[in-house]
Amino acid sequence: MKIEKTLIYLDPDSSLNLQSQIRQKLVEAIMLGSFPPGRKLPSSRKLADQLGVARNTVVLVYQQLIDEEYLVSRERSGIYVNEKIMEGRVGFEGKTEKNNTRNSEWDRRFKGSLVTEKEFAAPPNWQQYPFPFIDGQFDNSLYPVKEWREASRLALGVREINQWAGETGDADDPMLVEEIRTKILPRRGIQAGPDEILVTVGTQHALYLVCQLLVDASVSVAVEEPGYPPMRQLLAQRGAALVHQPVDKEGMIVDDNLNPCQLVCVTPSHQTPTAVTMSMARREALIKKSIEYDQLIIEDDFEFESNYLGHPHPALKSIDTENRVLYMSCLSKVLSPGLRLGFLVAAPEVIAEARKLSRLMVRHPPLNNQRTAAFFLSLGYYDTFLLHLHETFEQRWIALRRAVNYYMLPYVEITPAQGGTALWIKISKDINMKFLVQEAAKRGVLIEPMEHYYAASKVSENCFRMGVTSIPADRIREGVDQLRDLIHDLTTHEIESFDNAEGSQLLGDELLATMANSIMLTPVAYGEPCSIEIYGDGSLVGKAGYANEDCDIGKWWVEGDQWYRQWTRWAWGDVGVYRVIMDGEIFKLFDEKGRLIDQGVLKKMEDAL
Amino acid sequence: MKIEKTLIYLDPDSSLNLQSQIRQKLVEAIMLGSFPPGRKLPSSRKLADQLGVARNTVVLVYQQLIDEEYLVSRERSGIYVNEKIMEGRVGFEGKTEKNNTRNSEWDRRFKGSLVTEKEFAAPPNWQQYPFPFIDGQFDNSLYPVKEWREASRLALGVREINQWAGETGDADDPMLVEEIRTKILPRRGIQAGPDEILVTVGTQHALYLVCQLLVDASVSVAVEEPGYPPMRQLLAQRGAALVHQPVDKEGMIVDDNLNPCQLVCVTPSHQTPTAVTMSMARREALIKKSIEYDQLIIEDDFEFESNYLGHPHPALKSIDTENRVLYMSCLSKVLSPGLRLGFLVAAPEVIAEARKLSRLMVRHPPLNNQRTAAFFLSLGYYDTFLLHLHETFEQRWIALRRAVNYYMLPYVEITPAQGGTALWIKISKDINMKFLVQEAAKRGVLIEPMEHYYAASKVSENCFRMGVTSIPADRIREGVDQLRDLIHDLTTHEIESFDNAEGSQLLGDELLATMANSIMLTPVAYGEPCSIEIYGDGSLVGKAGYANEDCDIGKWWVEGDQWYRQWTRWAWGDVGVYRVIMDGEIFKLFDEKGRLIDQGVLKKMEDAL
Repeated sequence: MKIEKTLIYLDPDSSLNLQSQIRQKLVEAIMLGSFPPGRKLPSSRKLADQLGVARNTVVLVYQQLIDEEYLVSRERSGIYVNEKIMEGRVGFEGKTEKNNTRNSEWDRRFKGSLVTEKEFAAPPNWQQYPFPFIDGQFDNSLYPVKEWREASRLALGVREINQWAGETGDADDPMLVEEIRTKILPRRGIQAGPDEILVTVGTQHALYLVCQLLVDASVSVAVEEPGYPPMRQLLAQRGAALVHQPVDKEGMIVDDNLNPCQLVCVTPSHQTPTAVTMSMARREALIKKSIEYDQLIIEDDFEFESNYLGHPHPALKSIDTENRVLYMSCLSKVLSPGLRLGFLVAAPEVIAEARKLSRLMVRHPPLNNQRTAAFFLSLGYYDTFLLHLHETFEQRWIALRRAVNYYMLPYVEITPAQGGTALWIKISKDINMKFLVQEAAKRGVLIEPMEHYYAASKVSENCFRMGVTSIPADRIREGVDQLRDLIHDLTTHEIESFDNAEGSQLLGDELLATMANSIMLTPVAYGEPCSIEIYGDGSLVGKAGYANEDCDIGKWWVEGDQWYRQWTRWAWGDVGVYRVIMDGEIFKLFDEKGRLIDQGVLKKMEDAL
Repeated sequence: MKIEKTLIYLDPDSSLNLQSQIRQKLVEAIMLGSFPPGRKLPSSRKLADQLGVARNTVVLVYQQLIDEEYLVSRERSGIYVNEKIMEGRVGFEGKTEKNNTRNSEWDRRFKGSLVTEKEFAAPPNWQQYPFPFIDGQFDNSLYPVKEWREASRLALGVREINQWAGETGDADDPMLVEEIRTKILPRRGIQAGPDEILVTVGTQHALYLVCQLLVDASVSVAVEEPGYPPMRQLLAQRGAALVHQPVDKEGMIVDDNLNPCQLVCVTPSHQTPTAVTMSMARREALIKKSIEYDQLIIEDDFEFESNYLGHPHPALKSIDTENRVLYMSCLSKVLSPGLRLGFLVAAPEVIAEARKLSRLMVRHPPLNNQRTAAFFLSLGYYDTFLLHLHETFEQRWIALRRAVNYYMLPYVEITPAQGGTALWIKISKDINMKFLVQEAAKRGVLIEPMEHYYAASKVSENCFRMGVTSIPADRIREGVDQLRDLIHDLTTHEIESFDNAEGSQLLGDELLATMANSIMLTPVAYGEPCSIEIYGDGSLVGKAGYANEDCDIGKWWVEGDQWYRQWTRWAWGDVGVYRVIMDGEIFKLFDEKGRLIDQGVLKKMEDAL
């Protein structure tokens, strides 16, 4: 009997070796009935010839399957499919066709079917786009493959399997709880006992548990506006009355609108989606109010520890003296969202109740993953990878901020943020966001529109988000340049180009004389001041930030009617070539294509002092 | 500086090698602040001396930690903790003590706190009991360690990690869905498309989803009595009206009491907890009724494919022509309950709705486990291990049935079952079950009381359950013997002993003459008839079962006043020594300790024909 080559196709790119592939395909063929039980299989020599592999490879596969009683070898006859292996299979004989005419009937059976909120989803093939500025997509190149494999290997030791394979009832892995308690929580300033920690199937599970426990139609809940749509959906499902509390530069606003709420949901470390870090003053005000009005606080600390521009703030939970904060976080940033491991930290009474409910829902998160993560933590890999991620994302985030500042300054406004992995960008209200997102995608640039973060109410601002979790640092500049081109094309009627700019161009000697010994005063895109000192000797000194945190030096010169500028670090150290138009005290720099690069006030040094 | 030996204790029994242990302990010491950042570590020579390990072991640990920037090496100075590694940690400074006086306040905040039903829990150290007859505890010795490791290794390939690490939204691993569809469901006669399958965090998760979707206070639901307590708890939580439907020898009774129900929950393959397999006639009646009364059926197929005494019945789902059955099962029997992988098979409309809800609860079951299980299935290990488990449990189950029949015949009644992993045993109502369970545990025998399987209503029978999932076959006989001793002691006032038996003992020649050429007619403990033909030539022929499925031969003789009997297979081939008392036509066999072993009718062969 001949096995069709198409039946056993060996894939040279497979992660399985030849032996495993042949095994996999043979098993499939047997299960699909291509080899009925009792049917003789081709000899190892024949099969090896057909597949073009060494005979020994096939012999080993056959031998393994015989050892496992999948196949049987009959002396002087050959190798057969063991009839036992198919025993217990019921088969489809006599099965009548399904009557599928009742489909519409289901609706009346569902008790409160879920309404899925509109949500943005990155295209499934987002990895094929050259500039995927989408946040939260996991960058596989950052996965700690070797270390996770080591932790997996340890968790697969026989002694370990004895620990996690059995039914433990509702207990979490005590080793993981201890690692969370001693290695993760102290980073956020949180002290908690084992009875104050519940391991969950990701943060979503923790949110669900808390909503089931604490929310019903009698409860009024404050949520951030804009905010995380699944949070609103969970609360809506429970029938809660929602108070949509706006977010400003210090995070969610704490005012009298919160007073009637029994529950307040916040994302203080980096607000979802604006990435704003809640100020310490705001945090203290929130805790104070929670005591005054007897409120509980849900703190979702998804994006912790990524304040590149300042010290991290302690979690709300760490300044909570009355156990009013229910804190949740996850291991997804380091260990991938696919793993689904999160945790809830709250008063023992809450944890006990959440544990009962979790047991009824899922019993507990898979224990093999709990133990593997515990080993990963105990070997210190969590710390080193967090450091690595922090450095990688910081580099990308700063690169994004610089590129947006350089290319898009006249077109956008960036909400100030201390860090995180995304920028929240406001743009002219005249631009149709849906069109922008679609057109950008055509040019290979993925950005995330923001409407779905707002509750049904009116969206006052035209915003999008650019994230860095999925794009390598060396692609960021070009991606922003591409996006700028698009935005430039869409806004020519309102943002000046060289051709339609007001004022008059500085030419030749006048250009040289005007620039020498003057100071450019400009804001940067993220709202901080910047000054550029242009000395007569051809040197430049640039100072940015409220305390001049970011300085650089460079040189400048004039050739023909164009101003040349080259920084040591800023603007990637490139030579910039600009035409300069003065409009009263206002200077405007245009690049070779006539696009506005920068504008601000130009003063002579002696006047500026 | 000296590291205390107690700080780094090397455990010779650890599954971690020395290098990993030293790494783990060093990281712990750093995190706990025993080595503050910037503090110099002992030299590798010094630490190796203190720990009594090769210097190279310590050098390798240090080098790895330096590579990962955990430690830094400063030339001509030594090795230090990298200050960066502790950056981002907030610390506990200034943290005020928690005010924990509000504990009782929580109750008013919980919206419908769960009432945990009384449940039996095996002692946590059950593995240390010599005779753990508890069902459902996973026997680690049966875990497919090597094969699971291989599947894990494959799922940890870089290409695979790219598949599962990212955020997939709500999709399950398509490879696992395909394996369930083609390898598991056909065994139960079920044909389903990918849109009819949802992967869940164990069966419990599937039950929870279905209850959330289909049940509220307006719905009347039939459940089995006795039945699975968490099912009742889930339904109660949704406010459903419950109809407790009794179970007989053919499974849940299908009668007019079901008519008003919109939903019927059943465990047809082996009823939980009685292990009864629902007959085909009953299955068909149930499906017929569901069509007549427009009902849905939840089929929990936890213990599939373990009918040792007959062919497996197809799942209800496989004879369901109108998509009325919601079928759920899991991979726990082979892959351990700790892994938490189950699945739901139902109409596409139900799956779509359940997927939305699951997304809101947990997003999806961990994708690394989904992919690992998919490889395990695709390599055929699931089939071979199911076969292995089937054989192992069959051997144990038959051994338990035989031992109960031999030792406990006069004391108990066994509910007939086709297989499964447990026996459901009825005992005299005078025995206090709680006392029996406690006393048995003192003798090393763990059995499971059954009250918690009954809803609040009266428990009409005094039952316990003996399971074989956790006890090796060679312990079963002794465990049953031990339990018999205890039951004997507790029932001497009602079950006859030799000393208080009615009738008169057969002695010497009279014994010989009475036994020769007669037939013993007895029932076995599981309700089937048994006859023993006692020939004058000293031979025995035993026939058990309705169609004499189980036969054996043996020999018998008389020494003094005792009857000797030895089977080839039955009663383990041991020589049995009995005193015989006749009470009219009734014979009674007593062992050397005077305990009743068997009783029945004794007839002369010529009369019996």
